[in-house]
Amino acid sequence: MLDIKAALAKNARDVDVVLDRLLPARPDPESRLMEAVRYATLSGGKRIRPFLVMASSTLFGVSEQFAIRVAAAIEMVHCYSLIHDDLPAMDDDDLRRGLPTCHVKFDEATAILAGDALLARAFEVIADSQTHPDPRVRSDLVVELAKAAGGDGMVGGQMLDLLAAEVPLQIAEITRMQRMKTGALIAFSCEAGAVLGKAADSARHALHAYAHDLGLAFQIVDDLLDVEGNDEEVGKRTHKDQGAGKATFVSVLGVERARAQSDMLAQQAVQHLEIFPETADPLRALASFVVHRRN
Amino acid sequence: MLDIKAALAKNARDVDVVLDRLLPARPDPESRLMEAVRYATLSGGKRIRPFLVMASSTLFGVSEQFAIRVAAAIEMVHCYSLIHDDLPAMDDDDLRRGLPTCHVKFDEATAILAGDALLARAFEVIADSQTHPDPRVRSDLVVELAKAAGGDGMVGGQMLDLLAAEVPLQIAEITRMQRMKTGALIAFSCEAGAVLGKAADSARHALHAYAHDLGLAFQIVDDLLDVEGNDEEVGKRTHKDQGAGKATFVSVLGVERARAQSDMLAQQAVQHLEIFPETADPLRALASFVVHRRN
Repeated sequence: MLDIKAALAKNARDVDVVLDRLLPARPDPESRLMEAVRYATLSGGKRIRPFLVMASSTLFGVSEQFAIRVAAAIEMVHCYSLIHDDLPAMDDDDLRRGLPTCHVKFDEATAILAGDALLARAFEVIADSQTHPDPRVRSDLVVELAKAAGGDGMVGGQMLDLLAAEVPLQIAEITRMQRMKTGALIAFSCEAGAVLGKAADSARHALHAYAHDLGLAFQIVDDLLDVEGNDEEVGKRTHKDQGAGKATFVSVLGVERARAQSDMLAQQAVQHLEIFPETADPLRALASFVVHRRN
Repeated sequence: MLDIKAALAKNARDVDVVLDRLLPARPDPESRLMEAVRYATLSGGKRIRPFLVMASSTLFGVSEQFAIRVAAAIEMVHCYSLIHDDLPAMDDDDLRRGLPTCHVKFDEATAILAGDALLARAFEVIADSQTHPDPRVRSDLVVELAKAAGGDGMVGGQMLDLLAAEVPLQIAEITRMQRMKTGALIAFSCEAGAVLGKAADSARHALHAYAHDLGLAFQIVDDLLDVEGNDEEVGKRTHKDQGAGKATFVSVLGVERARAQSDMLAQQAVQHLEIFPETADPLRALASFVVHRRN
């Protein structure tokens, strides 16, 4: 049986080496911006999205040196979204991965710019010829990443999430919001391997379906951890949703049904991988890890 | 003699048609984000950067249908930067193009997200196959746009500008800051035509040199308008730099020398265009327009 925790830890170390190289510290006077960028990007995190890129790339024999650049770029986009989402004008969070959030450590202006710089850098890395020899693959990756990150994806989902503070959402609306807010980038992480490997549409669709279920399961567990966890273990402020009177999977379904739903989604995610041989075992193991994680 | 005002006005109408199509209004409940995006993008503006893209594309016989998509994408990046720069945590501006700024009209969270969505959308548009049949050209454009917009370009320049509020800059530092903050995107606008038209390096370098001088001239005139103009005519708050005790070209050089410097730079910009025939006349006329504009 694959040791998923060890595999995730090794993946995190690998992607951190690349992130460190792609986001070099700068000399004065520009140091502050890159300091903030590096602080927000290189201070831990499970690196789930990079893991999905590497695992899906393995299915199609994609060279690791290409895949890891895409993995790093997607993590940059994820980290940028955390910086902006944590801002006082948004979710107003002061703790992330067990550390002060970027705008607390630096200041709001620096945090906004650090996020902006990360997003631009992610596209620069993806489009660079070192990421894949075929420029059509690189262009396709840029288009798909932009869609996943933009107004119809992650940013649009965050907007819906903010509006939900005013009018609590029903379960179908929560699902749709989360599918945009976190699901789109998770789906792109899985599909990236298929794009890099020029895989058949059927394989790409299977990965999309897997990612969709995985992403929702992940989010439900996030909501459960907000209710059941404590700040120290989870590494960010918990009991926030309840305090804000925000509708979540847990507030609408209750703890037990939410837990059952996340288990069901994880199983369903694995079923979508049927067409793949044991090379997909890391993806299978991840589905189980995601619903049993404690942070 | 080319009527530059009429040419700019026609260009603005053309690019607005494309921006309107590329940033379609959305049905509820997502309407708010796209409303803010459209508000900040489709409410006027001289569209100098799109003009530079179209004019430089003309030099190499690039199809207008390709060039105008790049023009629109660059304007999206420019508008995103205005939204974020105007935020309370940054320059805290409430007036832009004669209207309330995005965060005043909507709110801070919506403004941050509208900027984020615009940046992602710009890369999506550039990388789309409709922008150029050759994917290598599209990838190159993505890399160059990302560099111009990112930490070594626009965002890095804005960071330096904010830090300058604490330690006033000398003229060389102001030049360097402005070269990053506004110069990089202006330079990319001019070079985009060369990339689209697969022009020789010599042509691209000439356009870069032109853009460099034009960008500085443009910025010096911006500083002059801040001192000499009024809110109504300029369309944004004036006399801000002085109030903030910020070092600008005008505060360091004085009005007369700043004016002479901008004239000199505009002439120098035109000299870099020597290698081009009369197809470069719109670029020549623009240099003169930039230093004589009133807003």
